[in-house]
Amino acid sequence: MSRFFADQYKDLTPYVPGEQPQDKKYIKLNTNESPFEPPESVKNAVSGQADTARLYSDPDLTALRAQMAQNYGIPADNIVMSNGSDEILNLAFMAFADEKKPLAFADITYGFYKVIAELNSIPYTVIPLKEDFSIRADDYVGLGKTIVIANPNAPTGLYLELSKIERILKSNPENVVIVDEAYIDFGGESAVCLVKKYDNLIVTGTFSKSRSLAGARLGFAFANQKLIADINALRYSMNPYNVNCFTSAAGIAALKEKSYFDNNCKVIIENRDFLEAELKSLGFIVIPSSANFVFAKTSLIGGKELYLRLKEKGILIRHFDNDRIKDYNRITVGTAKQMKTLIEKIKEVLEEIENEKC
Amino acid sequence: MSRFFADQYKDLTPYVPGEQPQDKKYIKLNTNESPFEPPESVKNAVSGQADTARLYSDPDLTALRAQMAQNYGIPADNIVMSNGSDEILNLAFMAFADEKKPLAFADITYGFYKVIAELNSIPYTVIPLKEDFSIRADDYVGLGKTIVIANPNAPTGLYLELSKIERILKSNPENVVIVDEAYIDFGGESAVCLVKKYDNLIVTGTFSKSRSLAGARLGFAFANQKLIADINALRYSMNPYNVNCFTSAAGIAALKEKSYFDNNCKVIIENRDFLEAELKSLGFIVIPSSANFVFAKTSLIGGKELYLRLKEKGILIRHFDNDRIKDYNRITVGTAKQMKTLIEKIKEVLEEIENEKC
Repeated sequence: MSRFFADQYKDLTPYVPGEQPQDKKYIKLNTNESPFEPPESVKNAVSGQADTARLYSDPDLTALRAQMAQNYGIPADNIVMSNGSDEILNLAFMAFADEKKPLAFADITYGFYKVIAELNSIPYTVIPLKEDFSIRADDYVGLGKTIVIANPNAPTGLYLELSKIERILKSNPENVVIVDEAYIDFGGESAVCLVKKYDNLIVTGTFSKSRSLAGARLGFAFANQKLIADINALRYSMNPYNVNCFTSAAGIAALKEKSYFDNNCKVIIENRDFLEAELKSLGFIVIPSSANFVFAKTSLIGGKELYLRLKEKGILIRHFDNDRIKDYNRITVGTAKQMKTLIEKIKEVLEEIENEKC
Repeated sequence: MSRFFADQYKDLTPYVPGEQPQDKKYIKLNTNESPFEPPESVKNAVSGQADTARLYSDPDLTALRAQMAQNYGIPADNIVMSNGSDEILNLAFMAFADEKKPLAFADITYGFYKVIAELNSIPYTVIPLKEDFSIRADDYVGLGKTIVIANPNAPTGLYLELSKIERILKSNPENVVIVDEAYIDFGGESAVCLVKKYDNLIVTGTFSKSRSLAGARLGFAFANQKLIADINALRYSMNPYNVNCFTSAAGIAALKEKSYFDNNCKVIIENRDFLEAELKSLGFIVIPSSANFVFAKTSLIGGKELYLRLKEKGILIRHFDNDRIKDYNRITVGTAKQMKTLIEKIKEVLEEIENEKC
């Protein structure tokens, strides 16, 4: 740390992204990317932008928002786009949480919420998930705090029914409720249909998971026009040209390929079913997932040990050093072939463990 | 504004980007973009990324920083990349300015400084430029504030000699001095050579101007490793994957095309000389520019009036509604053909004015 660093940030613990090792080629099941490449039309759209990249991108992202409006059946004025959904989460926290309106989120959820709360000096309450990792909606009913819920949740994959989200929304009319739907395309019903009805709802999403564009960095939020205007006041005060021309073009093209991505989601769900069944047959406890990953543990081997042994065998999964979930690993659902290889390698690990005991 | 908006942002006045009208095709001389397309190799590099866009980009941007290090002759550990230079300015202000270390910048300079100071509730002092719009270095010597200087300055185009920058650096050892070199490739010597010598220096830059990539959004900063580490602590707490895969690839390819872009800068400087001479011959006062724009006024017509009349004729220039500079316009230097058309149209406007007087 330099002697110039502002006091308010001296105790920050920055977010630690999933590892991206360069030492060898892994089967990468650690950051919930799609195993499927973007379609040809997305590639062409990006290439087509190179000629006009000398010009600033449209800060209003008019064309991209128009296409979003068409796909999601919601007016463009209810949409804001961002440089990945991390950016929109930061903007929403800044806009709608402070000392007067502290944040509340689950103890086991996307780790970035805590980081951006601390970055912005926003007080927060951590609400423990139930023993089975599900969210107890009653914990949030009438809470009187700015609430953020990942739905489906990460790293558990558990989905909270929309009726419960609605109860939370209805009972906190003086606070904003942010529903982070990064994984919604793999299961569950989106809260986007509630945006018209509730002026305190923000639904966030990303092109990183179901739309095969993690590297492009494209996120979004749906909300009441007034909330969108507040977020835009911050966006125009921080980084008005936040989404670049290539990403914007990729986003528009991806939105036009709905059936391609819908089909990918179907395949991921099939592969998830396969993975869950195989893991269970090997003695794992698997949390029922509505996302493109599964969260699983076994009494046969510790979570970190399994992670390390699979890494040695060329497969990366995600382990979290958090006491409550340290026995688990989060495993991204990939192609059928990847899932078969994963199961083989897990079997090898379990055999090794067994042999070492002898 | 919604009833949920955090108090601290209620009085924000967001930045207003240069207009990007969609109503017709203009000769766009209002946002200091390059008139030259990126070279073929940049286009190919971007296209090549489409296959791997499903994966997260490298948050450390190792390959891009390695190429930067090679081009600028400075170690990669002294470099941080950003989503446009606006983002790096925001991060640097957050990191190195607060109530204890308020900001100082010129009254006539990049309008974004004031916006991000206010966004972050950082107190700031505005230091008037001299009558001729030059910076009086003595105003900053031993100031004891976090200083930001655009060099060359915008919208004036005036360059401050490196020896004066060094005096300011040396006399403020307890404060960070940010030198914003968005336009340095069009004139003057970069302060990057001083990074080794001064641990309180940050030099920021962009690919938006000389490198024809405004739409790609790529900025950077050079500084002492400790300052870079502080900025990265914030970057990893706000948006770790801030530069997407397409932009990163475009940046690497652009850095390898040094002679192409150097030659473009030469052409811009020639066209700037032409434009300055022509404007002077029409009775304009032209501030000597080291940037890819000129700042000029004439007693024959008001600044806003000239801007509006040229817009009607299909040419966009930038007018600022600020009392001290309201007689001026900032005109981006484009191709030789664009500059000839501009001069013709200005002549038409001046003739119209003359006729209307009769």
